[in-house]
Amino acid sequence: MAHTHQIRVRYAETDAQQVAHHSAYVVWLEEARIEALRTLGRSYRQLEADGTLLPVIAVNVRYRQALRFDDVADLVTEVSVDSPSRISFATAVCHGETLCAEATVTVAAVGADGRPKRLPADLVALLD
Amino acid sequence: MAHTHQIRVRYAETDAQQVAHHSAYVVWLEEARIEALRTLGRSYRQLEADGTLLPVIAVNVRYRQALRFDDVADLVTEVSVDSPSRISFATAVCHGETLCAEATVTVAAVGADGRPKRLPADLVALLD
Amino acid sequence: MAHTHQIRVRYAETDAQQVAHHSAYVVWLEEARIEALRTLGRSYRQLEADGTLLPVIAVNVRYRQALRFDDVADLVTEVSVDSPSRISFATAVCHGETLCAEATVTVAAVGADGRPKRLPADLVALLD
Amino acid sequence: MAHTHQIRVRYAETDAQQVAHHSAYVVWLEEARIEALRTLGRSYRQLEADGTLLPVIAVNVRYRQALRFDDVADLVTEVSVDSPSRISFATAVCHGETLCAEATVTVAAVGADGRPKRLPADLVALLD
Repeated sequence: MAHTHQIRVRYAETDAQQVAHHSAYVVWLEEARIEALRTLGRSYRQLEADGTLLPVIAVNVRYRQALRFDDVADLVTEVSVDSPSRISFATAVCHGETLCAEATVTVAAVGADGRPKRLPADLVALLD
Repeated sequence: MAHTHQIRVRYAETDAQQVAHHSAYVVWLEEARIEALRTLGRSYRQLEADGTLLPVIAVNVRYRQALRFDDVADLVTEVSVDSPSRISFATAVCHGETLCAEATVTVAAVGADGRPKRLPADLVALLD
Repeated sequence: MAHTHQIRVRYAETDAQQVAHHSAYVVWLEEARIEALRTLGRSYRQLEADGTLLPVIAVNVRYRQALRFDDVADLVTEVSVDSPSRISFATAVCHGETLCAEATVTVAAVGADGRPKRLPADLVALLD
Repeated sequence: MAHTHQIRVRYAETDAQQVAHHSAYVVWLEEARIEALRTLGRSYRQLEADGTLLPVIAVNVRYRQALRFDDVADLVTEVSVDSPSRISFATAVCHGETLCAEATVTVAAVGADGRPKRLPADLVALLD
């Protein structure tokens, strides 16, 4: 079950090569993860308020084709539960038919105290 | 008494016009304010830990000359206490002899609870 | 004639005060300007491709109320032609009924060579 | 031969978890690459002016320990030539004795026209 989120490249996200800077994708990926959770019925803001934070522990991005200012890209994300405390998000960044980047981001649950914890059972149920 | 802080334009801070994006200056100004306070003997991190936050309430920037990737700029900052709870920082952003931007940023003291408060007396004494 | 553009505060745009960083507004204002032009029938990307760049020459922001992660804000923008080469955008950033920030941004037309030029006549006609 | 570059976490780089946002590391890694090249005697700005751009084609980061506002981190980078057109940079982000993140970033040479090209021979000689 993939979730699609659309972004439009901001001027501030471009660089002197006149394409989107590679760090901008990392921010879009986060927005796509949050929107994927929302679509599944979970607000990440509420999740944090309820005592579960999901800091990023790994980011992998392969850049294949540049995006320019004002381009609209689709971020197609698949979510998978890797372990009782980890979730991975695999995202394809597409511009029309063109695959511009592929990414995997892994997050790990911690409590408000910063200590590792298990993912909430209802979140795991949602994602499975 | 002006304080000078040097920054080098990051590639990530450039945009498709191949100059530093105007929002990058706002981030540099903050870095310059924090370094000005440090030079005066106050760590902004410690100030926050001690219960005084200084959120920005006003930003004014006039952009005169563009900066490019890898340019080194001097941010020359003068600090003034505007009121018992407000500080203003006037900064000139210079590239060699060239004035690239002029800015004024005002911050207002609030407590950890977000409520307005007076500036700590020792901070006011330092700045005066 | 005001134009409204909606943004949602990204996690990456928050800071350690757990609110949107003041520099994020500057990026949103740019997005709002570009969307205001698009609504009026002008693509800023096309404008640049046609040889008119609109670098920012002044930014003024007054911050009144903080925005938090995931908040949705309306940016209500009015456009005015200040001179044959300058446009000002006055924007109110609102969260529901709350005015969170007020801003004015001025841009000045330059050619692809970086030299000042007049605004294209059709753009002025659109904005008037 | 490792090159060390120091950064200080900017307030703007923190997020609502009160630590440096994971995307900030990607920007620091770029700064560290550029400083590593400078130490070796090559200005990346000049490299681009001479017709060789080095866009990023892959980013891998493992985050181990958070950095907070005002922390000073050492980015220890080793450079290796992967192929006639690719360079990899392996970086450890350290806070004192603590390893905070490990990253590998790969760049590929393209010309000003965006077409793949070989790395300049003198750059390869420098890096070997």
